[in-house]
Amino acid sequence: MPTNRILARRTANMGASAIREILKVVSRPGMVSLAGGIPAPESFPLAIVREITGTVVEKYGSTAFQYGHTEGFLPLREALVDYLVEKGIDTTSDRILISSGSQGVLDSLGKILINPGDRVALEAPTYLGALQAFAPYEPNYVQIASDDQGMLPDALAAALSHRGVKFIYLVPNFQNPTGRTLSMKRRRAIAGIIQRFDTLLVEDDPYGDLRYRGTPMPPIQTLAPDHVVYLSTLSKIFAPGLRMGFCLAPGEISHWLVLAKQGVDLHTSTFNQALAAEYLAGGHLKRHLPSIVALYRPRQEAMLDAMARFFPSSFTWSVPDGGMFIWVKGPEGMDMEAVNKMAVTRMTAFVPGTFFFARPGDGRETMRLNYTMADEKTLTGAIKTIGDVLEEALMEMHGQAGSVNYRR
Amino acid sequence: MPTNRILARRTANMGASAIREILKVVSRPGMVSLAGGIPAPESFPLAIVREITGTVVEKYGSTAFQYGHTEGFLPLREALVDYLVEKGIDTTSDRILISSGSQGVLDSLGKILINPGDRVALEAPTYLGALQAFAPYEPNYVQIASDDQGMLPDALAAALSHRGVKFIYLVPNFQNPTGRTLSMKRRRAIAGIIQRFDTLLVEDDPYGDLRYRGTPMPPIQTLAPDHVVYLSTLSKIFAPGLRMGFCLAPGEISHWLVLAKQGVDLHTSTFNQALAAEYLAGGHLKRHLPSIVALYRPRQEAMLDAMARFFPSSFTWSVPDGGMFIWVKGPEGMDMEAVNKMAVTRMTAFVPGTFFFARPGDGRETMRLNYTMADEKTLTGAIKTIGDVLEEALMEMHGQAGSVNYRR
Repeated sequence: MPTNRILARRTANMGASAIREILKVVSRPGMVSLAGGIPAPESFPLAIVREITGTVVEKYGSTAFQYGHTEGFLPLREALVDYLVEKGIDTTSDRILISSGSQGVLDSLGKILINPGDRVALEAPTYLGALQAFAPYEPNYVQIASDDQGMLPDALAAALSHRGVKFIYLVPNFQNPTGRTLSMKRRRAIAGIIQRFDTLLVEDDPYGDLRYRGTPMPPIQTLAPDHVVYLSTLSKIFAPGLRMGFCLAPGEISHWLVLAKQGVDLHTSTFNQALAAEYLAGGHLKRHLPSIVALYRPRQEAMLDAMARFFPSSFTWSVPDGGMFIWVKGPEGMDMEAVNKMAVTRMTAFVPGTFFFARPGDGRETMRLNYTMADEKTLTGAIKTIGDVLEEALMEMHGQAGSVNYRR
Repeated sequence: MPTNRILARRTANMGASAIREILKVVSRPGMVSLAGGIPAPESFPLAIVREITGTVVEKYGSTAFQYGHTEGFLPLREALVDYLVEKGIDTTSDRILISSGSQGVLDSLGKILINPGDRVALEAPTYLGALQAFAPYEPNYVQIASDDQGMLPDALAAALSHRGVKFIYLVPNFQNPTGRTLSMKRRRAIAGIIQRFDTLLVEDDPYGDLRYRGTPMPPIQTLAPDHVVYLSTLSKIFAPGLRMGFCLAPGEISHWLVLAKQGVDLHTSTFNQALAAEYLAGGHLKRHLPSIVALYRPRQEAMLDAMARFFPSSFTWSVPDGGMFIWVKGPEGMDMEAVNKMAVTRMTAFVPGTFFFARPGDGRETMRLNYTMADEKTLTGAIKTIGDVLEEALMEMHGQAGSVNYRR
């Protein structure tokens, strides 16, 4: 049957992600990919999982396999109270909602908040999964400029004073795609702004625990708890395949999130919630997290070292204190989609940064590099290859080699 | 902050389910509940789970805990091909999509198909979870009359010829809430109608394997594969807490379902998909299913026996060949919400049937009884209590005891 004629209008907003196509290409055998955004499989605590699956069946029996409350499995919600207290968030188990990955919270937020045409304010660039979650609800995006310290408070205030913004979305720590962390001063400024404008902020914090240097900063949620939905996931500190996210939302928002989720999946896997509860409450996360940090930190350092050696001097990049990504900016006129295609012919891939902007065409001279999925030696080689391609692209762009100082 | 002012219009459609409130009441200690719709915990294959969690970690290692494809985990999709072949469905693994419960398919279908105001045709009464999944997309419902053989083909054809219906939703086997099964003749008739009107049918088959008597019939999907989305779940034959559903959809519908799901949860838990793959491919379902049937069949028989003894003669009910529910119809004027309140004071509960109709106020004289969650003796006692309450309600309704022949 000609099914296209029965599609809802909103499906026009749900185009296949260009990134997905890139990720298909880079899954070819032999490709060195800095394109992904996924944790290293060797970071997963398989021995712990083997142990706690037994504990869970023993401890909870059939309850771990039965239907559960949409809000979440109580032992996990209780374990998350302790987890959040260490981030400075003061809450109770009845206020924590479990979701099927943080993606689940983003979908439900879109569903309960966005009317077609409503404005959503985002960092430029921003996390692509959020764009995908919100898109079917047909928002208009307002890009808020950001720099090395994260979203610019003045730009945010200007956007809020000029137009009706339904909510703001940002990633405060080691943002995807830039790796940037919002400074303490800006956290305070943004907390003040959302209170002054009485506007909701969605604070998405998947990477906060992957800190390699420096001191953690409190979530904006702690500064303006009535105006923030704080959400996070166990994908980066336990296992993404378990699809385990959670959030903390003010008052009525929480009520509607539960109703929305009920229609979407009734509840998140009880068994996986029980595993997560055991992973947190049994002290396994505390013991295991340092080994994840110890795995990623040298990879990040190797990538940064190689970039300093092999990238042309007209390129700049973020030096994040944690997370999974480095953000690179080339000179104006550089086309990173073309560069990526050249790199792929040499079996090395990254993601052109333009895909992370809500406004098409922005950020053509940028790229995102991931360092969690390869070892130091492989990363160094890949960066050398990309550096070579960048130099060639620069030469091509300027018509002749002599006009650029392409090796620092 | 006054969050209600920022809610999307569609949230007005997402009211708390009255059933949910009833289920809260009946979770009181000591209450005998025929109200639920959940499998008996003693039907879960805990010993098998304990065994196959080890197998899965051994066999798939970190892959079982990594991000996966939105379409689903290949070993599970392959195992489902064999499972579906036995139902007469001829398909390949690349056409099967995995979802977070069958609820996940219903949500995605609503998202990709329903524009506000679009018409969706449903059995009267119908599965409440489908109404909840579709509601946020703001459909109008068209109720199609049904009798003991399921949906009436003539009523369906009339509805399709008079108004623009986006799709039809039905449960062919041991329907929730009626327990009814669509006859073979009607399956053929409905297959012909959807082809003639070129209309999509959503065939939701969660209970098909719970057959206590008689011979299975082929899904409508096998009669009109280009016009049917067939969906099912492992909730009733493995464990609902794992939230494992799947579907088979024609052409472009399948493509859009994947994009919708990507925004909702990226993919269903890889670990749980691997467990399900092992449960099916390892032959565990085939060995375990007879024990579930052997658990439920005597419970259903005990309930039917007790109803024949204790229910007033002016009541009729379905005698299903399988599933989890019996549907009861009282004389006109009977208010089953009031009856349920009376029963609850005697520590026995059921669900008034009116909640299963899309049109408010329909089915006030009906109720749904579940027999999977209590043993035979408890069920017999509960039916006696409800029978007593029904007699009292009849007497009250008619003003005097003598006017009704209330005991057969």
